[in-house]
Amino acid sequence: MRIEGKAYKTIWFENNLVKIIDQTKLPHQFVIKDLKTVKDTINAIKTMEVRGAPLIGVTAAYGLVLSIIENNDLSFLKNSSEKLIASRPTAINLKWAVDRMIKRLSGVNDKDILNIALDEAKAIKEEDEGYCKNIGLNGLKIIEAISKKKKDTVNILTHCNAGWLATIDWGTATSPIYHAHQKGIKVHVWVDETRPRNQGANLTSYELNEEGISNTVITDNAGGILMQRGKIDMCIVGTDRTLSNGDVCNKIGTYLKALSAKDNNIPFYVALPSSTIDWSIKDHKQIPIEERNSEELTHVEGIDENNEIKKVRIYPKKSKSLNLAFDVTPAKLVTGLITEKGICEASEKGLKGLFK
Amino acid sequence: MRIEGKAYKTIWFENNLVKIIDQTKLPHQFVIKDLKTVKDTINAIKTMEVRGAPLIGVTAAYGLVLSIIENNDLSFLKNSSEKLIASRPTAINLKWAVDRMIKRLSGVNDKDILNIALDEAKAIKEEDEGYCKNIGLNGLKIIEAISKKKKDTVNILTHCNAGWLATIDWGTATSPIYHAHQKGIKVHVWVDETRPRNQGANLTSYELNEEGISNTVITDNAGGILMQRGKIDMCIVGTDRTLSNGDVCNKIGTYLKALSAKDNNIPFYVALPSSTIDWSIKDHKQIPIEERNSEELTHVEGIDENNEIKKVRIYPKKSKSLNLAFDVTPAKLVTGLITEKGICEASEKGLKGLFK
Repeated sequence: MRIEGKAYKTIWFENNLVKIIDQTKLPHQFVIKDLKTVKDTINAIKTMEVRGAPLIGVTAAYGLVLSIIENNDLSFLKNSSEKLIASRPTAINLKWAVDRMIKRLSGVNDKDILNIALDEAKAIKEEDEGYCKNIGLNGLKIIEAISKKKKDTVNILTHCNAGWLATIDWGTATSPIYHAHQKGIKVHVWVDETRPRNQGANLTSYELNEEGISNTVITDNAGGILMQRGKIDMCIVGTDRTLSNGDVCNKIGTYLKALSAKDNNIPFYVALPSSTIDWSIKDHKQIPIEERNSEELTHVEGIDENNEIKKVRIYPKKSKSLNLAFDVTPAKLVTGLITEKGICEASEKGLKGLFK
Repeated sequence: MRIEGKAYKTIWFENNLVKIIDQTKLPHQFVIKDLKTVKDTINAIKTMEVRGAPLIGVTAAYGLVLSIIENNDLSFLKNSSEKLIASRPTAINLKWAVDRMIKRLSGVNDKDILNIALDEAKAIKEEDEGYCKNIGLNGLKIIEAISKKKKDTVNILTHCNAGWLATIDWGTATSPIYHAHQKGIKVHVWVDETRPRNQGANLTSYELNEEGISNTVITDNAGGILMQRGKIDMCIVGTDRTLSNGDVCNKIGTYLKALSAKDNNIPFYVALPSSTIDWSIKDHKQIPIEERNSEELTHVEGIDENNEIKKVRIYPKKSKSLNLAFDVTPAKLVTGLITEKGICEASEKGLKGLFK
């Protein structure tokens, strides 16, 4: 999608370097950053210069390419894989992408390994693009149906950033929105700011602005009253890990919006590429919930009156805080899963019908 | 309650001035401010130097005292009343307090009016203190019962600031917590930061710190996963307007926590003095929901590295935003109302049993 009128992907490989858009600088600065080593990619994932389950997966795949360039040795590659997987615990794509790369590279000889790794990383990247496009085409039908029935702008709430910046292009939750907009359907997006890192305001609203899609940022607290007063027609969010029973682990706060949607009879959809499905865990209480540095809560970064980026402390000095990054939306609250293969019920039956 | 070890009330009258703690400066600075005219009080309410339904009511009562000092004329008083009532639309105590003052002053002669106004404002203030104390004693029983059953620290979630800073002393939602703490019951408070103005972090956590009560600030998004993982035993919040059917209008985001509490079988209590009950409105959709300046969302104030208060813009420049201040928690989600007269069901029957 576009930034200042120019089309970008979130990640690309060029001259033996991985290029990313440094998402910690958005929306205030647009910076393209070079990752030179696997350590750089691990750091980029940890510090959320790249984020979003699909993009993390692709970054990890390219991380292994850089690992091979740096040191074409199996034990180094194994070590890189482990460190990449450990860099963020909740998003399942990370492990999925690393496992896929390692499987593809096993038994490959030293001479070919770099080219094969590059091809596989590129394949994962292009697959994700294709998945996101298809998610959009599938989700478009839902928006189209509401638009036809309502004969007015369709108001869609989304949480965090499951936009193109979280993937390679199109996004997951935003892909149906972009497709609807391109088809001339009137949409308006309510964007949860998504504390603590405000990826809704900083990334989702930013990317919607750049594509000319009407949107309004609200606090995470606001979705409830908007639903109570009829201002929201549907919700679409992304997911970092989808269990086979249809439970969805996504950015913290998603669950609260799903509860509110249910209470107000508003459809609540989750958009996902199949790479986010975790077929192994049956109980959401087994999902590790990432605890991040509490400074993400206590301090906020913004632009001061001199147009400079400044960090300020917003909490009382003496206060403790806790920064959990995800929660779980039980399948019972999910109207449907929008995948690259179609829309299904949030259940084992629904998912297996499409994927097994 | 105490700030830096010294006991304060949130408002007092001294030398023909109304003294308040400027709550927009907390937690970074503790500033006592003089209000000299009714215009000052209106401004203090609008800009939230004083906030919280009970404190707003008392401030308005003292505003009328200042109005009389300034200009002892009936039409000036009437004008002051109207402007005070209009200064914030959702909290019902404001209107309640002004109406009570005007009723008391009607027919009073010019010579006595100031003393009578002062007495009445003082009476409203002292009543509120007494109400809050009794709310605490009544709510204490609930915490005590959980503590006895659990034989461990009672974990309580609260939203926004319904603390002593929102009242004259003790608070509403916090009063049971202060009483439990004083009785030696182990409590820990999960404090929702409460965007956009972060009164949870800035005021609730601050006042709990000053009283030595263990607390942890979390984002507004976090309550759901904490409930899902068994970290919360009960919720207590305040209210700006309680309908006779038990629906509760409180700081935006309250509704989302009530939904989550219900979904996880966690008791959800609302603490209120009877002055917040609105017997006239039957349908919560009739409650005006205050829309505040969107700069409260787009900009954040904090302390920079030089220990100075700085305001920074956190949203993209092009983004629109909407700042609604309240939502409604339907009675079906409320376990009970903790009032100065006892605990009752959130229903007309429950409320009338105590108050009519």
